[in-house]
Amino acid sequence: MSLKFNKIAIYSSLNSKKVNAIISQTEEVLENLGAKVLKSNTLNRKSSKGKLYSDSYIIKNADLAVIIGGDGTLLSGSRKFGIRGIPILGVNLGTLGFLTDIAPESLTATLKEILGGKLIKDKRFFLEARVNRQRIKKSIALNEIVIHSDAVAQMIEYELYLDDNFVYRQRADGIIISSPTGSTAYSLSGNGPIVHPDVSAITLLPMFPHTLNSRPMLIDSKTTIKVKILKNQNCSISFDSHNKFKLSLGDEITINKTAEELILIHPKGHDFYSACREKLGWSLGTPKDYII
Amino acid sequence: MSLKFNKIAIYSSLNSKKVNAIISQTEEVLENLGAKVLKSNTLNRKSSKGKLYSDSYIIKNADLAVIIGGDGTLLSGSRKFGIRGIPILGVNLGTLGFLTDIAPESLTATLKEILGGKLIKDKRFFLEARVNRQRIKKSIALNEIVIHSDAVAQMIEYELYLDDNFVYRQRADGIIISSPTGSTAYSLSGNGPIVHPDVSAITLLPMFPHTLNSRPMLIDSKTTIKVKILKNQNCSISFDSHNKFKLSLGDEITINKTAEELILIHPKGHDFYSACREKLGWSLGTPKDYII
Amino acid sequence: MSLKFNKIAIYSSLNSKKVNAIISQTEEVLENLGAKVLKSNTLNRKSSKGKLYSDSYIIKNADLAVIIGGDGTLLSGSRKFGIRGIPILGVNLGTLGFLTDIAPESLTATLKEILGGKLIKDKRFFLEARVNRQRIKKSIALNEIVIHSDAVAQMIEYELYLDDNFVYRQRADGIIISSPTGSTAYSLSGNGPIVHPDVSAITLLPMFPHTLNSRPMLIDSKTTIKVKILKNQNCSISFDSHNKFKLSLGDEITINKTAEELILIHPKGHDFYSACREKLGWSLGTPKDYII
Amino acid sequence: MSLKFNKIAIYSSLNSKKVNAIISQTEEVLENLGAKVLKSNTLNRKSSKGKLYSDSYIIKNADLAVIIGGDGTLLSGSRKFGIRGIPILGVNLGTLGFLTDIAPESLTATLKEILGGKLIKDKRFFLEARVNRQRIKKSIALNEIVIHSDAVAQMIEYELYLDDNFVYRQRADGIIISSPTGSTAYSLSGNGPIVHPDVSAITLLPMFPHTLNSRPMLIDSKTTIKVKILKNQNCSISFDSHNKFKLSLGDEITINKTAEELILIHPKGHDFYSACREKLGWSLGTPKDYII
Repeated sequence: MSLKFNKIAIYSSLNSKKVNAIISQTEEVLENLGAKVLKSNTLNRKSSKGKLYSDSYIIKNADLAVIIGGDGTLLSGSRKFGIRGIPILGVNLGTLGFLTDIAPESLTATLKEILGGKLIKDKRFFLEARVNRQRIKKSIALNEIVIHSDAVAQMIEYELYLDDNFVYRQRADGIIISSPTGSTAYSLSGNGPIVHPDVSAITLLPMFPHTLNSRPMLIDSKTTIKVKILKNQNCSISFDSHNKFKLSLGDEITINKTAEELILIHPKGHDFYSACREKLGWSLGTPKDYII
Repeated sequence: MSLKFNKIAIYSSLNSKKVNAIISQTEEVLENLGAKVLKSNTLNRKSSKGKLYSDSYIIKNADLAVIIGGDGTLLSGSRKFGIRGIPILGVNLGTLGFLTDIAPESLTATLKEILGGKLIKDKRFFLEARVNRQRIKKSIALNEIVIHSDAVAQMIEYELYLDDNFVYRQRADGIIISSPTGSTAYSLSGNGPIVHPDVSAITLLPMFPHTLNSRPMLIDSKTTIKVKILKNQNCSISFDSHNKFKLSLGDEITINKTAEELILIHPKGHDFYSACREKLGWSLGTPKDYII
Repeated sequence: MSLKFNKIAIYSSLNSKKVNAIISQTEEVLENLGAKVLKSNTLNRKSSKGKLYSDSYIIKNADLAVIIGGDGTLLSGSRKFGIRGIPILGVNLGTLGFLTDIAPESLTATLKEILGGKLIKDKRFFLEARVNRQRIKKSIALNEIVIHSDAVAQMIEYELYLDDNFVYRQRADGIIISSPTGSTAYSLSGNGPIVHPDVSAITLLPMFPHTLNSRPMLIDSKTTIKVKILKNQNCSISFDSHNKFKLSLGDEITINKTAEELILIHPKGHDFYSACREKLGWSLGTPKDYII
Repeated sequence: MSLKFNKIAIYSSLNSKKVNAIISQTEEVLENLGAKVLKSNTLNRKSSKGKLYSDSYIIKNADLAVIIGGDGTLLSGSRKFGIRGIPILGVNLGTLGFLTDIAPESLTATLKEILGGKLIKDKRFFLEARVNRQRIKKSIALNEIVIHSDAVAQMIEYELYLDDNFVYRQRADGIIISSPTGSTAYSLSGNGPIVHPDVSAITLLPMFPHTLNSRPMLIDSKTTIKVKILKNQNCSISFDSHNKFKLSLGDEITINKTAEELILIHPKGHDFYSACREKLGWSLGTPKDYII
């Protein structure tokens, strides 16, 4: 049988009995199917017998990366391997994620199907940010970039420009800049809208704005976003709530979607709305109202 | 001078001294520039000297329609002429609209510029709805389609399907299905997000939903939306808060964007964000906080 | 045993096998405990053997009314009997209500306990409205009074006065005026706050307001609320989504809490928050996040 | 003329030409009216000629404190002097505050009126917090107490108890616990309701909650609020965005309204809604819609 993917990395940032069991199972299934398995050297050395591979080796050689864990793990694997063109397949630990949609129970059957070519390719974009005056290590986010005061209830003041058009000057705790992928994450908890992955848009969501006429705004994903920090002593930028850098007065942060796309692999029949129903508690049949 | 547009309709659904003065001014300016003016027979016959033309004559002959009035008038002109391929230019009555962006004060200069070819083409899509069992006159909306109980605080129950995927079953007063154009209209007053006209998305916004986990959702504009009415005695569908038809139990409403696009003409330098600042009260310079 | 309540009405606006079975059970339990049962003549005559009593007889004689049904039934029973000083006990049909908190399964034990005097008295206020120029039958609401345009997405324009102080002039689809009891009903589905029954406040919630700076506002329950209808052709006032009257241009609606209080009887150990957890899906133990 | 207040403190935490000019004017007006002025030693020594008094001297002797500045200054003056029973009068620097309602232009006339006894007493409550295991200097807030993760988009997990009843367990960035006074401050920017100062309620507002069924909740101001920190490495409690203390895993924070009340003095005719109109941009006459 000719395989859709031949050299397959296994990656996780977690280390537990459960994770290690799923890693072993994945390895076995993939090898049985005839694929070459490249286990990441981030895996636990003890529990993972056999050779472990560096990120750079994986990036050069793998044609698929299986990520085992929750959505947080998939975010980190995507920023590592997905941004370098390696398709990503997410296996969860028993709880469905918006991104990690393969359950351990159906692992064997699903991997077989996918390696056989029965799959859906789901393209997502990353966001990247550059800061004018600082040497910030180029950073990317799959979910969201947040610019935020370092202290609770301490505002920052900034100006927003979109494709060099002035939009507004605002005082707020911060602003969330989210991809459709991130629309079901931090942005949603701040009352942002749910954006289907196929929509080419970025959501701008002020956090605790000092004016009452702020609303979430969606702009075309090709738009160049610029945020100028006007007043603040302590303010930061964070990527997927992960990498975090200090910002200073006068910093201009330029945010774009990346040229690179993430290729998320799903089994046939995958459905965004079914994940919404499960994770957001949307009703299947007769809705359970709070109003009778 | 060769003109960008040669046969230009003038349309308004209003009738007042002010409107009639702007109509006369528009007519004069256009004729001075060498264009042939086709005044709509909806204009007041007394105040509008000269020949008036039927909708069908205008649709066959005009290569531009100048709409004079507020956003409501532009909506009706767009559903009449814009849907038939005639570019639309909106002249307001002194108050900037999101769609009618030319002020009477700058009418002469702006018309000259636009007929000379200095203009921006801004493409918008319409929404259209069909109902399975009923003979509803094919209806379109530029802003939004609303499916709603006919009585306040009386819920309807419906199922939502997107591209034939079941999404949820819900009890609510209704649902707003809005284009980006409509995102600054009724949808915004229901807490929907602001969607830039360049984003190819449709906003789905439940009205007074009976569950707490409903959120505005944005889907790709190519998506086919289906709403099945499950329980209700009195329920309607309305287009741009204008045309309205009764719905019945079991009706399946299919909503799509139209193949036809509206071409909105703006003067050079037109800017969506500047309309937001003016109409939504967004700050120009130092923001006026309510928190000091 | 001396009973806390001796003449006990049974009321329901529903008619089903289930309801009738619960009615019979209630009757039997109450008579076994030694109470005199007054069945309302709204009950189904066939299924309810024995004498049925008119509202006025019940109002004069009963010292407790057991209401069987959902929150809607309890609202109607409260407006009938509760407003006349008769304490109300709500029995649900298997689904917990915010107001009908006794489950059929625990009916016998709970009635015994309550007639024995182990109970909580929970006082609620009603809202009442008068209209200056019209002869509106005096109407009350336990949940909310809604003033609303009769057509979807058609605004009304009104002025709001609180204790004769001008507050604002607004364009909106309508306004919801809600008691704490109503804060978990229609007001909640319009994004209003949850107000504990012990808070002496009324919530004012504009519906689809035409300005972005509207927010829910809570005022002391002793405040006199006046709404002046400024512009509108078709507009109504409704009480608990039930009684509904037409309003006209220039109408001044005055809304107050009633002097009369509703006495809701709960079994010992009743807890508002536990109803919130059950009906709103609040977590008991480890919360089920949508974000992993 | 017998004065309503005889020994009057002047307090400000600011130091600018404008502030110092208003301080001098206030001093002069009060002395001309026959009052004894006690200037706080927080005032700029250079610009404030004459004796300056310590906080403790003022607390023992003053029967009114005039606070000059914005709402932030009034908050700090209230926590210093107001909590000790000294009535507070707020003078703003030209921009109306919700709490500092006397404009410099009307200073002389208003002070005369108020010392003559024409005044409104407006009572507000403070919130205070104790932490079970820590020695936190007893801290109070007039606006709000916030319990919050120290890092953006990093959740804390906590349980909420109200009068020892378990309410829910939640994951969120934090929770805002706000008095009616604070309802127009940080809570409002997080979409909390506006609560009239006369309402005896506390608003609980989760910040970026990880569930979609969270809503602002209002509870009686006499309720004892307990928050148990379940999981977190870095989390803090802040009072009026001012005093801030670290919290640890397992901390139980108990929050109550204080026994002491703040007495805010307003000139006759003061009106909460007029401050709302001015600061929140509510319309005076014909509302300026964004929808035409």
